[in-house]
Amino acid sequence: MQTSLKVGLIGAGRLGKMYGQYLAHQVPGVELAAIADCKTEVAKAVAGELGVAKSYARHEDLLDDREVEAVAVVTSTSTHKQVVMDAARSGKAIFCEKPISLTLEDAAEMIELVAAKGLFFQMAFQRRFDPGYLAAKKKLEEGAIGDPVIFISISRDPYAPPIEFCDPKVSGGLIADMGVHDFDAARMYMGEVARVNAIGGTLAYPEMKSVGDIDNAIVDLVFQSGALGAVQLSRNAVYGYDIRGEIWGTKGSIQIGYDRQTPILMFTRDGISHDAVPYFMERFEHAYLAQIRNFAEHVRQGLPPSITGADAVAALRISLAANRSLRERRSVDMVELAERQTA
Amino acid sequence: MQTSLKVGLIGAGRLGKMYGQYLAHQVPGVELAAIADCKTEVAKAVAGELGVAKSYARHEDLLDDREVEAVAVVTSTSTHKQVVMDAARSGKAIFCEKPISLTLEDAAEMIELVAAKGLFFQMAFQRRFDPGYLAAKKKLEEGAIGDPVIFISISRDPYAPPIEFCDPKVSGGLIADMGVHDFDAARMYMGEVARVNAIGGTLAYPEMKSVGDIDNAIVDLVFQSGALGAVQLSRNAVYGYDIRGEIWGTKGSIQIGYDRQTPILMFTRDGISHDAVPYFMERFEHAYLAQIRNFAEHVRQGLPPSITGADAVAALRISLAANRSLRERRSVDMVELAERQTA
Amino acid sequence: MQTSLKVGLIGAGRLGKMYGQYLAHQVPGVELAAIADCKTEVAKAVAGELGVAKSYARHEDLLDDREVEAVAVVTSTSTHKQVVMDAARSGKAIFCEKPISLTLEDAAEMIELVAAKGLFFQMAFQRRFDPGYLAAKKKLEEGAIGDPVIFISISRDPYAPPIEFCDPKVSGGLIADMGVHDFDAARMYMGEVARVNAIGGTLAYPEMKSVGDIDNAIVDLVFQSGALGAVQLSRNAVYGYDIRGEIWGTKGSIQIGYDRQTPILMFTRDGISHDAVPYFMERFEHAYLAQIRNFAEHVRQGLPPSITGADAVAALRISLAANRSLRERRSVDMVELAERQTA
Amino acid sequence: MQTSLKVGLIGAGRLGKMYGQYLAHQVPGVELAAIADCKTEVAKAVAGELGVAKSYARHEDLLDDREVEAVAVVTSTSTHKQVVMDAARSGKAIFCEKPISLTLEDAAEMIELVAAKGLFFQMAFQRRFDPGYLAAKKKLEEGAIGDPVIFISISRDPYAPPIEFCDPKVSGGLIADMGVHDFDAARMYMGEVARVNAIGGTLAYPEMKSVGDIDNAIVDLVFQSGALGAVQLSRNAVYGYDIRGEIWGTKGSIQIGYDRQTPILMFTRDGISHDAVPYFMERFEHAYLAQIRNFAEHVRQGLPPSITGADAVAALRISLAANRSLRERRSVDMVELAERQTA
Repeated sequence: MQTSLKVGLIGAGRLGKMYGQYLAHQVPGVELAAIADCKTEVAKAVAGELGVAKSYARHEDLLDDREVEAVAVVTSTSTHKQVVMDAARSGKAIFCEKPISLTLEDAAEMIELVAAKGLFFQMAFQRRFDPGYLAAKKKLEEGAIGDPVIFISISRDPYAPPIEFCDPKVSGGLIADMGVHDFDAARMYMGEVARVNAIGGTLAYPEMKSVGDIDNAIVDLVFQSGALGAVQLSRNAVYGYDIRGEIWGTKGSIQIGYDRQTPILMFTRDGISHDAVPYFMERFEHAYLAQIRNFAEHVRQGLPPSITGADAVAALRISLAANRSLRERRSVDMVELAERQTA
Repeated sequence: MQTSLKVGLIGAGRLGKMYGQYLAHQVPGVELAAIADCKTEVAKAVAGELGVAKSYARHEDLLDDREVEAVAVVTSTSTHKQVVMDAARSGKAIFCEKPISLTLEDAAEMIELVAAKGLFFQMAFQRRFDPGYLAAKKKLEEGAIGDPVIFISISRDPYAPPIEFCDPKVSGGLIADMGVHDFDAARMYMGEVARVNAIGGTLAYPEMKSVGDIDNAIVDLVFQSGALGAVQLSRNAVYGYDIRGEIWGTKGSIQIGYDRQTPILMFTRDGISHDAVPYFMERFEHAYLAQIRNFAEHVRQGLPPSITGADAVAALRISLAANRSLRERRSVDMVELAERQTA
Repeated sequence: MQTSLKVGLIGAGRLGKMYGQYLAHQVPGVELAAIADCKTEVAKAVAGELGVAKSYARHEDLLDDREVEAVAVVTSTSTHKQVVMDAARSGKAIFCEKPISLTLEDAAEMIELVAAKGLFFQMAFQRRFDPGYLAAKKKLEEGAIGDPVIFISISRDPYAPPIEFCDPKVSGGLIADMGVHDFDAARMYMGEVARVNAIGGTLAYPEMKSVGDIDNAIVDLVFQSGALGAVQLSRNAVYGYDIRGEIWGTKGSIQIGYDRQTPILMFTRDGISHDAVPYFMERFEHAYLAQIRNFAEHVRQGLPPSITGADAVAALRISLAANRSLRERRSVDMVELAERQTA
Repeated sequence: MQTSLKVGLIGAGRLGKMYGQYLAHQVPGVELAAIADCKTEVAKAVAGELGVAKSYARHEDLLDDREVEAVAVVTSTSTHKQVVMDAARSGKAIFCEKPISLTLEDAAEMIELVAAKGLFFQMAFQRRFDPGYLAAKKKLEEGAIGDPVIFISISRDPYAPPIEFCDPKVSGGLIADMGVHDFDAARMYMGEVARVNAIGGTLAYPEMKSVGDIDNAIVDLVFQSGALGAVQLSRNAVYGYDIRGEIWGTKGSIQIGYDRQTPILMFTRDGISHDAVPYFMERFEHAYLAQIRNFAEHVRQGLPPSITGADAVAALRISLAANRSLRERRSVDMVELAERQTA
C-alpha cells in the first residue's frame, strides 16, 4: 500500500477547519500532518480536535517542516500571494482557495514562481465538483440543449460579511469575492468572455458605503462566441444561501440548483413551506470534499492540476473588468485588461 | 338594468379573436357589436362564429358605425397610430394593445389627440391583471420583503414569429415587441428607470439577421431609486412559453410564475416530468379576460383608465433606450430620449 | 341560430349559486330561466343578482313553469329523491349533484322513474371534467404507465361542515359525502370494485361523535381486476383543500393534483412557502363550468348523459360497503350489497 | 486518545460492502478488523479493497478472532438467527440488519440469549437516522401539526429482487421484507399498532406467483391511540426508488421525502423533467453512515442501543399480522399474535 501524502493546512478559520476535517478523516491516502493559523490558539484548538500533533502560528514554520509535502492555503485573499510564494520556495505542492489574489500582477508573480519551480498548483472552485454543476456540464456536452446561448448565474449570501472584510482592499469587494465563482462557471460552460457590463449598488446595508463596497450587483457578459451571460450577486438572502444557474440553449435549458436543506414539507395554516439551505458549507459540502480529494489524488498520481492558475486569473480578470464597468458606467472589453494589469 | 356597452373589435387575428370571444360571451354589460379586419374573410368568419351581425374590411367603416361606442384595437403595432387616431376622431372610447406604437413621436400624437378630444384611452398590459403579478404587488406593498432591491424578469417565446414580422420596422424588434411587458412590470414594482444597458444577439435563428432582428437579449435597468433590474428576452424556449419574475428585497423575495399547464406529474423510466405552458393565451387567459372586463367596467362607470398612454410611452422609451444601448454598446441614460424623440 | 335551452336552478346555496352564475353568463346556448330555493329570500337575492326574472320558494312551482326545459338539482342530498322524482314527473331534463341519494332504494326508484319517462338524467362528478383527471385518463389510455395496478386518492376538506350536516342521516357521513368522488374516479380509471376495507375515527373534532360521524377514514379497494386502491378522507386540512390522486402502473405512475392557488413563491426568514387551494370552488372552478356546459350541450344535441344514474349507484354502493366495513371491522364484498339494498 | 473499536463485518454483499466502506474510512474510533462472507472470494476481494488483513468464509472463524470486539451482521435474513446466536456466544457486541428474523420464535430466542449474556445488541432501521425522518420527528414533537391522526408511508422498489429471494421462506415476502421499515417508522411517530388490514396482489411480475410472493400491497393500521395508518408497498417503481411518508395532524401535515437525485432540471421539447433516486444506497447514504456511527459510538461509550430487539420484534409482529390479514381476507388484531407465536 502507498504511503500517505502528508498535507499541511494553512488557515484554520471556518473554511480551513472544514478542509482540516476532510483531510483528517475523509480523504483516502492523506495524512493531515500540521496546521498553521496566525491565531495561535485557533491553530492549537483545531489541531487538538483533529488529532494533529503539530500546530504553528506562522505559516513559515509549517513550510519549514520537511515532512509536509503539500499545503492547502485557506487564508484570507490578501495574504494568498505571500503564503503561496513562500510555499513555492519551500517546494510544496499547493492547493489555493479562491480568489487567487486581489490583483493580476500578484497572480502573475505567483504563477510564474510556481511554474519556475515546476510545482503542482491547483486552484479551488468547488462548483466544478458539485453534482449539479457536473451533471449540467455532462448534459450540455451530450447536446441535450443544443448550443448554449445564455448563461444565468445567481449567487446570494444569507448576510453580509463583517464590515472590515467588505473593504475591497481585503476581500476584493462583492464582485471579486463572490462573482469569481460565477465567472469560473461561466467559462466552464460558455468559454471566454469578451465584454462586460456591470451595475450595482449599496442597497441593503448602507453601512457598507463606509468601506466602499456594494451589496448587490448585476454583471452581464458577452462571450467570445457571441453568447450572453447575466450574473446576479447579492448579500441579503435573508432566507439562506441561494446558488442557482441556468444554461439556456437553442434546444432547451438546464437549471442547476435547489433551495432546500431538509427533505420535509410543512402544511400548516401559514401555507405550504420548506426550509432553505443555510450557507455555503451545507450547500457545497460534497463539492468541497470532492475537490480536496481531487487535489490529493492528482498530487499522489502525478496528474496535472484540475483547475490551474490560468483559470484563476481568467476569473479574476472578469471580476476586475466588472469593477471597472461599474465605476465608469460603461461596457468594458476584456482586452482592456492585460493579463498582468491592475484594474 | 343598464344597457350594454356596444364594442367594436378592430383586428381579428389570433389575439383579436380571443378578445372577440371574451367580448361576445364573458364580459358583463358588453355587446360585441361589430368586427373589422383588413382580411375581409377573417372578419366575416370570426363575426359568424361569435354571432356578430356586422363585419368590415376597413376599420374606418366600423368607426363610422354610430352604434359602436368603444373599440378594441388589436391590429399590428405599425398600424396602431392610424387606427387610434381615426378612432379618436370618431369619438370612441379606445382600448389599445401594446406596444402603443413604434416611435415616441407617434405615441405623442396619439395621446395628444385623445386628450384633446377628452376620450377614454386604455392601454393593454395584461400582466397587470395576472393573479401572480397582482399577488406579488400586494405582498410587496404589505412589506413582506422589505424594500425592493432588484427586479428580475424573464420572457421567453416558444418560437420566433414569422420572419417578416421580426423586421423591427413592423414589430419594433425583440426588445420593443417582447420587452415592453417586462419594462411595464418593472415600473409597476420599482418605479421609473434612470439608465439602461443592453446586450443581445441573433443566436438561435440565423435567418433573422436578414431582417436585422435579434432573438436573445439581456437588458439591465438602473432605477431612479438606485435599485437594479435584469430582463432576459428569448425567442427559443422550445419547451413552451416561459414568463417569470422575481422581486428581490431587503427582507425576502417574491418569485412570480409557474411552468406547468396540466396538473399531472409523470413518473416513467425517462424520469419525473410535467408539461409546460404552451403559449401566451394559455398563460394569460385569465389576465386577458380580466383586462378587457376592466376596460369595459371603467368605460361604463366613467372611471379613469387603469393603464394610460403615459404608461405605454414610458415602457416604449425603455425599449428604445435599450435598442440604442445595444447598437452603441454603451449604457444609455433615459434622459437621452426625450418624450417625443426617435431612438 | 338555435334557440336557448331554458334551465331552472333548484337550490341556490353556495354550490347552487355558482352553477347559477355559470348558467347565467358562461354556458353557450343556455338561458337561466328560474331559480328555486326553500329559503325565499335566497332565491330572490340570487335571481336578482343574476338578472333572472322568476324565483320560487317551492321547487314544485319552478317545475310547473312550462318554459323551463331542464333543471339543475343542487339541493341537500336528503332531498334529492323528492326533487328528482318531481322533476321527472314534470318531464324536465335533469342534472343532479352528487351523491344521488342516501340509500340504494331511493336511487333505484329515481332511476326507474327517469327511465320510464325516457328523460335525460345526468349526474355530477366534476372531477371527470377536471383538466388533471382528464389528462391522467388520456395518459393511462395511451399506455404511458402500462397496466394500472394501484389507485390512490386523497380528499381533504379544510374544515368540518356544520355539525348538523355531519349527521349521516343528512349527508351520508364522511365516507358517502366525500368519498363518492374518489370512488367514482376509482371506477373511471380502474373498473369495478370487488371488495372494500375501511377504517376510520373521530380524531380531530370530538364533537362529531354526538351525531355519529367520523372525520378521518381510509378505505381500501380491491378491484375486480385484482388491482388495489386506497382512499384517504379527512376533514382537517387546516391549510386548505387538498385533492390528489395517483395511478400507479407497471411502467410508471401518474400523479394528479397540485397544492397551490396563486403562482407566487415567497422567500423569507420563515423559509420558502406558497399558498394552498382554499376550497372546492377554487380547485374545481373549471371542472364545474365544463360539467354544466357538458350537460347543456348533451341535452341540446340529444346526446346520452356523460355520467349516468348507474354511475351514481355504483359509487354509492362502494360508500355503503365501506360504511359497513367500518362498522363491522371486516372486509366487505361488494356482492353483499344488492343494487337496491340498504347498507 | 481512546483505542479503536475493532469491528468484524459478517456478510459482504451489496449492503455489507457499503457498511464495510463506512467502517473502514468514515466511522471515527473504529477499525474494520475482519470480514467474513460465505463466498470466500467475495470476502477476500472486499477485504483487499478496504485494506483489511483478515477475511473468512465462515462467520464462526471471524467470531473466534479474539481481537474482534463487535460485529455487524449483514447476511440474508434467514441466517440472522444462527449468526447472532453464535456472535452472542462469543460475547461480541452486535449490530444486526433488519428484519431481525423470519419468525417471532427465532427473534425471541435471539433476544433472550443476548440478554442472558448481557451483550450490546442494536437493530438497523436506517430511516431513524435519515435527515427527513428525523426532522419530521422533531417537528411533530414541537407540536407543529397538533396531534398526529394518520401516518401514510410509501415504499417502492425500482425492480423486484431475484425470484429466489422473493420466496417468503427466504425474505419473509414483500410485506416483511419491505414493510418493516414502514412499520418501524409508524411506531416511531404514532405508537403501537392495535389492528391491521392488508390487501395485495401479484400484479406486475406474474412469475412471482411461482414462489408465492406478491409485488404490491396496501397495509392499513389502526393504532392503539385510535389514529390510522396506510402503508403502500410496491416492487415496480420503474423510475427509481421512491420512499415517502406523511404525518397528518389536527393542525397540519409533514411530508417526508423527495424524488430527485441530481439538482438539475431539464427543459426540452419533451417537457420539464428531472431524474429520480436510483435505489436505497443513494437515498439513504447518509442514514446508513449515521446509523453505523451511532452503533460504534454507543458501544464505545457504554450507552444503550438506539434501536432494540424489542423494536425489531414489534415491527416483525405487524408484518406477520399483515400477512395473516392478507391470507384470511379479514382484519387482524395484534393481540392474535403472541410475542413468540408463528404467524
